[in-house]
Amino acid sequence: MLTYSLDKNKGHLSKELYKALKKDIEEGNLKRGEKLPSKRAFARNCSVSTITVQNAYDQLVSEGYITAYEKKGYFVSDGVGKKRAAVSFVVKEEEEKAKMDLPDLSNNRVREDNFPFSIWSRLMRKTMAEKQKQLLSPMATEGVYELRKAISQHLSSFRGMAVSPSQVLVGAGTEYLYSLIIQLLGRDKTYAIEDPGYMKLERIYESNGVKSTRVQLDEKGLSLEMLENSGADIAHISPNHHYPTGITMPLDRRYEILSWAAGKEDRYILEDDYDSEFRVSRNPFPTLYTLDGSGSVIYMNTFSKSLASTVRISYMVLPFDLAERFKEKLSFYSSTVSSFEQYTLASFILDGYFEKHINRMRLFYIRQRKAILSLIYSSPMKDRCSVIENDSGLHFILRLHTTLSDEKVKEILKEEGIKISALSDFSHFSSISHDFIISYSNLDLEIFKKALSILSDNV
Amino acid sequence: MLTYSLDKNKGHLSKELYKALKKDIEEGNLKRGEKLPSKRAFARNCSVSTITVQNAYDQLVSEGYITAYEKKGYFVSDGVGKKRAAVSFVVKEEEEKAKMDLPDLSNNRVREDNFPFSIWSRLMRKTMAEKQKQLLSPMATEGVYELRKAISQHLSSFRGMAVSPSQVLVGAGTEYLYSLIIQLLGRDKTYAIEDPGYMKLERIYESNGVKSTRVQLDEKGLSLEMLENSGADIAHISPNHHYPTGITMPLDRRYEILSWAAGKEDRYILEDDYDSEFRVSRNPFPTLYTLDGSGSVIYMNTFSKSLASTVRISYMVLPFDLAERFKEKLSFYSSTVSSFEQYTLASFILDGYFEKHINRMRLFYIRQRKAILSLIYSSPMKDRCSVIENDSGLHFILRLHTTLSDEKVKEILKEEGIKISALSDFSHFSSISHDFIISYSNLDLEIFKKALSILSDNV
Repeated sequence: MLTYSLDKNKGHLSKELYKALKKDIEEGNLKRGEKLPSKRAFARNCSVSTITVQNAYDQLVSEGYITAYEKKGYFVSDGVGKKRAAVSFVVKEEEEKAKMDLPDLSNNRVREDNFPFSIWSRLMRKTMAEKQKQLLSPMATEGVYELRKAISQHLSSFRGMAVSPSQVLVGAGTEYLYSLIIQLLGRDKTYAIEDPGYMKLERIYESNGVKSTRVQLDEKGLSLEMLENSGADIAHISPNHHYPTGITMPLDRRYEILSWAAGKEDRYILEDDYDSEFRVSRNPFPTLYTLDGSGSVIYMNTFSKSLASTVRISYMVLPFDLAERFKEKLSFYSSTVSSFEQYTLASFILDGYFEKHINRMRLFYIRQRKAILSLIYSSPMKDRCSVIENDSGLHFILRLHTTLSDEKVKEILKEEGIKISALSDFSHFSSISHDFIISYSNLDLEIFKKALSILSDNV
Repeated sequence: MLTYSLDKNKGHLSKELYKALKKDIEEGNLKRGEKLPSKRAFARNCSVSTITVQNAYDQLVSEGYITAYEKKGYFVSDGVGKKRAAVSFVVKEEEEKAKMDLPDLSNNRVREDNFPFSIWSRLMRKTMAEKQKQLLSPMATEGVYELRKAISQHLSSFRGMAVSPSQVLVGAGTEYLYSLIIQLLGRDKTYAIEDPGYMKLERIYESNGVKSTRVQLDEKGLSLEMLENSGADIAHISPNHHYPTGITMPLDRRYEILSWAAGKEDRYILEDDYDSEFRVSRNPFPTLYTLDGSGSVIYMNTFSKSLASTVRISYMVLPFDLAERFKEKLSFYSSTVSSFEQYTLASFILDGYFEKHINRMRLFYIRQRKAILSLIYSSPMKDRCSVIENDSGLHFILRLHTTLSDEKVKEILKEEGIKISALSDFSHFSSISHDFIISYSNLDLEIFKKALSILSDNV
């Protein structure tokens, strides 16, 4: 029978036993599917208590190395056929976390001290006290009416958009909304995405089994010629503030793209307006949705940027015809956002807290931007880089006057534990840009200072 | 210029004006795209105040009849090309609600007075006070670790399943999880679904662009022969308690289905265990997941039944190999469930409230069932129907001894404002069953009494 001689002076006997078993499983000395000794017999054999064996077994079970079958005992996790033992898989949550926590100059998530916890908590409590019946009533696929109304009011005052609540559809994140759009517009369509742009979009379309094609931007954004050459049916773009270049599409270009969409029955534009709340300029161009006369524009936005990325609420505005088609075709789906959060967010908007929150955040970002810029201008880097800003309130482009490749620059910073993204990371067409993304929404000034000094020493 | 003569004695002038305009738009007297008079001129013409016109315009804008363009004025909503005017579309939320509120004997949503509002509210507040940093930290696609751990503990104590948190994936509803499974297993697969069963599944698969095939059940559930004949690669089944028949798949059949899955590399079983918490019998068969030795079973469950259908949290357990494949292929997706609710639910489970809640609900359902049965046995219907129960804690089948078609029975009840579903509504193969679904989870006893008396008078 399986026996280990454990060093009792080491303490943590169950840990020792756990390690010994794990090693034997990993090295194949204990075969997959093999039965382990009963706790009692094993304890006797190793001269330890059954509790010790129990603890070691529990740990191995929780990590997937072994499996407990009631009344049968413990077996090494089965690798027969498709299932492999957990060996290579077991995720060290700590490692995962550490990886996430590496400071990232390009990371644009929201700072936690900017989230209005006390107001949100109060509104949530109030919602639960006052709306118990509504909270548990069946929801339309599109989301609860109160939130859709709040969103249409918000769009009216912030974006000058006239939208009926019946056109608004709330969903658990924009990625989920993309999948609905694919189901709505058809899987046989080709989707044009911007280059540079979010690489993730390509993967999302691919994973949903539809074709996408990258279209290169010029200085005004997506060009009509490129779009026409692409053969795409749907243009998925962010004309109001493109990430990462920051380009805002001028009015003439907007009309060109709209005329493209109006030119053929099944052409549509997905207008992604993800960070409109934080643009520096107070009077941006009207959205494509507003300028559209042919019902070809689907407008999308999210509360991930304006509130918190972990509150999973995004929305889209469908032109009337598509809203109707959605009702016919897809209203069998359940809403993906909890009613509790939908009602809370509705109060947050309708009671004016959202506007206040946005204003507070804007101020904070303006101050952050100033501080970051003054760090640059007071560092030795000041003559070896330029800052390119494009009406964005959340990030700018730092162009380095260097001959080093983008990869090399990233490597240098990474060695010191700092991450950064280059514009070229967002493009298929160009691999070197010397342009790097500085997101100041959540940037630690000390880290940025350190990054500047690393850059000035090495770049 | 457009003029209406409004009766000033009627009051609500803006409402009168709104109605008049709406009528003219609906009847086509005001053409799509037509510009409406300016507020001032229109007010003068109709001898009303500009506020009155403003209010009427606002209402029409909010309903989509007209559109406001900044500095240009108001236009009848455009019907050129693809976009139609809102006329036929405008959703009367009131009507929608009324439709939903029609009492439904087969409706299995949760009663609102069963939701633990005060505990949930307290845990939410506590979460927001104590976990601000975690709440705003990036989440893994699979969801927050704490909830996945809580779920694996719950599965261990309630279902005897040994599952590592790294195998658990949390998502915004089972429908969303199905779409992930399709992306994970491949769009070229054929999915077998049960008949009778949820018709919705067919639509979900179709909408996701994959083939599904209905497989008829026998008295033990899905049969090996039928499954083999179907040519399916994936069997999507609810062996532990099938809806609506209530069938629990016996052990011998389970092994047959597992052997089917083990027989070919790319075969998988989706085990939908949606209401396991409320089964009457305390010792059901082990889940397919537990019996599986070849890593072929994906286990799914939801908190929609056990907590509230409007709290959108479901989860699945992937075999190790698929969990690994998921990480490689699909971990670019964001989690679809708000971190706020994930942490709250984790506390709810870990602090023992979930178990208490389930026990309280079970007791409630047992009492409900008793009350419903005694209503049947004390009504004239008692000799003209039989009750078929299959270990379910949430519904039973009422078999009517009648010659009327299922459609006719539904019609009779509907005329009196009561909805009911027949078993045949869930099947492609049989259109008459005389079997009706009585969900007592949320049934109003008075309504049920009324239904019985209608049935005894007409059936």
